[in-house]
Parts: sequence; structure tokens; C-alpha cells
Amino acid sequence: MTKKPLILVTNDDGITAPGIRTLIAVMKTIGEVVVVAPDSPQSGMGHAVTLDSTLHLEQVYIDDGDQKEYSCSGTPVDCVKIAKSEILDRKPDLCVSGINHGSNSSINVIYSGTMSAALEAGIEGIPSIGFSLLDYNWNANFEAAATFAKSIALNVLKNGLPEGVVLNVNFPKLEKEEIKGVRICRQAKANWKEEFDKRVSPQGKEYYWLTGKFVNLDKGEDTDEWALQNGYVSVVPVKFDLTAHHCVQKLNTWDF
Amino acid sequence: MTKKPLILVTNDDGITAPGIRTLIAVMKTIGEVVVVAPDSPQSGMGHAVTLDSTLHLEQVYIDDGDQKEYSCSGTPVDCVKIAKSEILDRKPDLCVSGINHGSNSSINVIYSGTMSAALEAGIEGIPSIGFSLLDYNWNANFEAAATFAKSIALNVLKNGLPEGVVLNVNFPKLEKEEIKGVRICRQAKANWKEEFDKRVSPQGKEYYWLTGKFVNLDKGEDTDEWALQNGYVSVVPVKFDLTAHHCVQKLNTWDF
Repeated sequence: MTKKPLILVTNDDGITAPGIRTLIAVMKTIGEVVVVAPDSPQSGMGHAVTLDSTLHLEQVYIDDGDQKEYSCSGTPVDCVKIAKSEILDRKPDLCVSGINHGSNSSINVIYSGTMSAALEAGIEGIPSIGFSLLDYNWNANFEAAATFAKSIALNVLKNGLPEGVVLNVNFPKLEKEEIKGVRICRQAKANWKEEFDKRVSPQGKEYYWLTGKFVNLDKGEDTDEWALQNGYVSVVPVKFDLTAHHCVQKLNTWDF
Repeated sequence: MTKKPLILVTNDDGITAPGIRTLIAVMKTIGEVVVVAPDSPQSGMGHAVTLDSTLHLEQVYIDDGDQKEYSCSGTPVDCVKIAKSEILDRKPDLCVSGINHGSNSSINVIYSGTMSAALEAGIEGIPSIGFSLLDYNWNANFEAAATFAKSIALNVLKNGLPEGVVLNVNFPKLEKEEIKGVRICRQAKANWKEEFDKRVSPQGKEYYWLTGKFVNLDKGEDTDEWALQNGYVSVVPVKFDLTAHHCVQKLNTWDF
């Protein structure tokens, strides 16, 4: 009998979120699962790490099964670091993060705790995938996402991933039979148009809530936004070498 | 008389840090300066944004001069967003972030609040630069950094930056006359080898401090690490389209 692959599961919505509970259930059908996830929601944490305060780690028992689970007081990136350093006895064969409640397509990849955890595992040389569903609802239907997450994870285990690359997978908010398939995409060029909601506290002090509207500026049919709007699961290969190699030559003409 | 360029200054070490005070002084010699920076240190915050709590903004007066300064309770990315949305009456001609106390070369770009602020401004279409000095000391000598920061900022104002690109600038810990010049570089392939320092609280509960060693795995002489170790200022053009375009074709052969 072949040894089961070791799969590290994390997320940014917290260890009790339905999205990660779905992902754990799926990964248990493929491999040996260890969960290290935040003890509270960490959405929008980007690639934050905890440098100025302490971290707590606690073994927890949430669902039945032989998976080991730990909740951590830190960020998603902290979870991957502490899993690797303090919990796992060998390098995992796969790291999966999510399933996030809400989209991480397009520029959202850069704000996303879900994707930062996946990127952190990628930096450590672990094949890694972040999964997100375009539905913020806590009671979202993860059935279709579960099916495709399994297929994509099996592909990564079988084929590996190129060095320095992780996958950013987003699922449209559709029933399984409505989804047309999987598209390999590029990150759409889009951004957020901020709208700060300015209020006054009972003590008379002004404060702000950050809100905003997502604006897709990209008409391309090879983008993740296009795929999701047209009924496909989007898969964007994402890298953490941020160098804009095409500019090096031009900048070399500058006079400092 | 030509109108002075409008320059937004921010950082992640907090508005009173010597690094940002230096950068403000330098930028005042070039343009009209508005400062929006965190009211407390935000190192390692990555591209975090504040979604689940409120933001406070306060006009402050720290140094002499006609620059307007605001301290913000949020992350570096929040500072850029609120500056653009609530404070500035027009799009700035330049955003500069730093000068960070400590390196943001190589993979550190991804954890860096300094660089995330610069990237956020870049996403908004503002020419943008993050500056960091390889010296964590609060009393670091910023003299050489100030000279090169001015030269690089003037180049960006004169030449512009390609769309979707911001600059990650790091200064070696050297006297001005020891610095050999400026090198345009790529991000070195490196990572952190974590070492968690496990302790027990007076109440008997275990907790951890995240520490680690930086490991450079890259022997290339075109990297930021090589430049810094050899007495140069490193300039890496950085992009926020994370798509690994070279993998799209390969992934299209997978069977989902």
C-alpha cells in the first residue's frame, strides 16, 4: 500500500468556518490531514506575520475523524510557519487554504489571507492551492466547490507544480451542474474604488469604515473575472517573485 | 512657475519614526508633501487592510514646515486608501513609503508593510517607491539613503514608471562615500528559516515567539542581495500582477 500524501489545511476565516470544514472533509478522502488554522477570522490580513506579539497554539477536536487539528492565535501565514516548524514531522505533499467565504480573484489575491497562506507554503517549496467561493454567506453551498477542489488537488499531487508557483482557484456561485468546467486564467486587471463611511462616535469623535466597490477594468476573455462570470472555475497560477523583469533594461538607462 | 509635484509619504514604522522624518525632509525639497502614516508600528503587516474594525485619522504637527500630516490607526495600506479617498484633493504625482528601518529586499517584499503601501499606491495608478535601509536601529544613519532617495524620486517624477510597476529600493548600511552606486536588480530567491522560541507563561501556558534566519539561496549577481552585499543601492521593479504567465500553457494540459 502506498503511503497517503500528507496534506496541510489552513484558511483565513478561522478553523470553525464551514469552508475549511468542507475542505478538510474533501482532503481526508485523498490523504492524511493536519489542520493548523486561525482561532478567529483573519480576512484581509494579506501576508501579515506576527512579529511583535506572542502566538498560542492549541490542539482542538471539532469534527470526527483521525485528522489532527490545531487552532493558532496568529495570521494565516503564521499558521503555515508554525505548522511546518512545530507540528509536522515531515514536509507536506500539499498545502490547501480555504475554502474562503468570498472571492479572491483578480487583485484580491494581494489582500487575501487565504492566498497568503498558500503563497507562504509555496515559498517553503510545498505544492500549494488557495480555494475561494464567490459567496460571503456563512451558509454558502460548498458542494460544487468540494468536487472541483478534489479534482484540482489530485492534479497537483499527480503533476506537481512548477517551482515558485501556487494556484489561486475561485469557484462561481453556481450549482454543480451549472458549472461549465475549469479555465486556466490570468489575473484580471481590476481594483477597488474605496468609499469611506465617516461616522461620529457617541463621544463626538470621527471615525471611518472602509468600504468599496470592485471595478474590473479588463475586457480580456483569458482573465479569472471573465471565467467566473461565464460559469467556469478559475485557476490562476500565481508567483511570489514580484520582479517586473521586462522593466530592468529600461530602468538601466536612468541616470542616478 | 511650474506647480510643485504632490507627494504622498507613508511608512510602516509609524509616523514618528526617524526613517519617515528623513523621507519627509527630502521630499519637501522636491514637492508639496502630504503625510498619512500609521500612528503605531505596523512592521510585517503585509498587504493587510482593516475590514472588521474602525479607522481613526488625526491631523498632527511633528516637524516644522508646511507639509500636512495625518496619523491613522490602520495599516500602511489603509493609510494610502484613506489618503486618496478622504485627504488629497487630487491624485498625487508620487507616493513614497519608508524609509523602513530594516531590509525589504528579496522575499521580504511580500511581508513588508512599507512595500505594500507602495504597491497599493501603484494599484491606484500612482508612481510609487518603497525605501528601506539595512539597519534596524532606531538611530540609524539615514544620510546616504536621503541622497539616493532624492535622486531616485526625481528620476521617477521625470521618467514615470511603466504601468503596473513600483520600485523596491534598499540601501546598504554604509556611509555615503562607501556606496558604489545604484543597481537595477531582480528579487533574489531566498526565504526565512523559522525558529519558534517556545516559552511558558507565569500561568503555565505555552506560547511562541516567531524568530528566524534569512537564507539566500541565490548565487546570481543580478539580484538585490548581491547588490546590497557589494555596496550598491538595489532597485527592483516590482509588479502586482502575480500571474505566472509561463505556466498557463502547461496547466492547460491537465485533466480536471
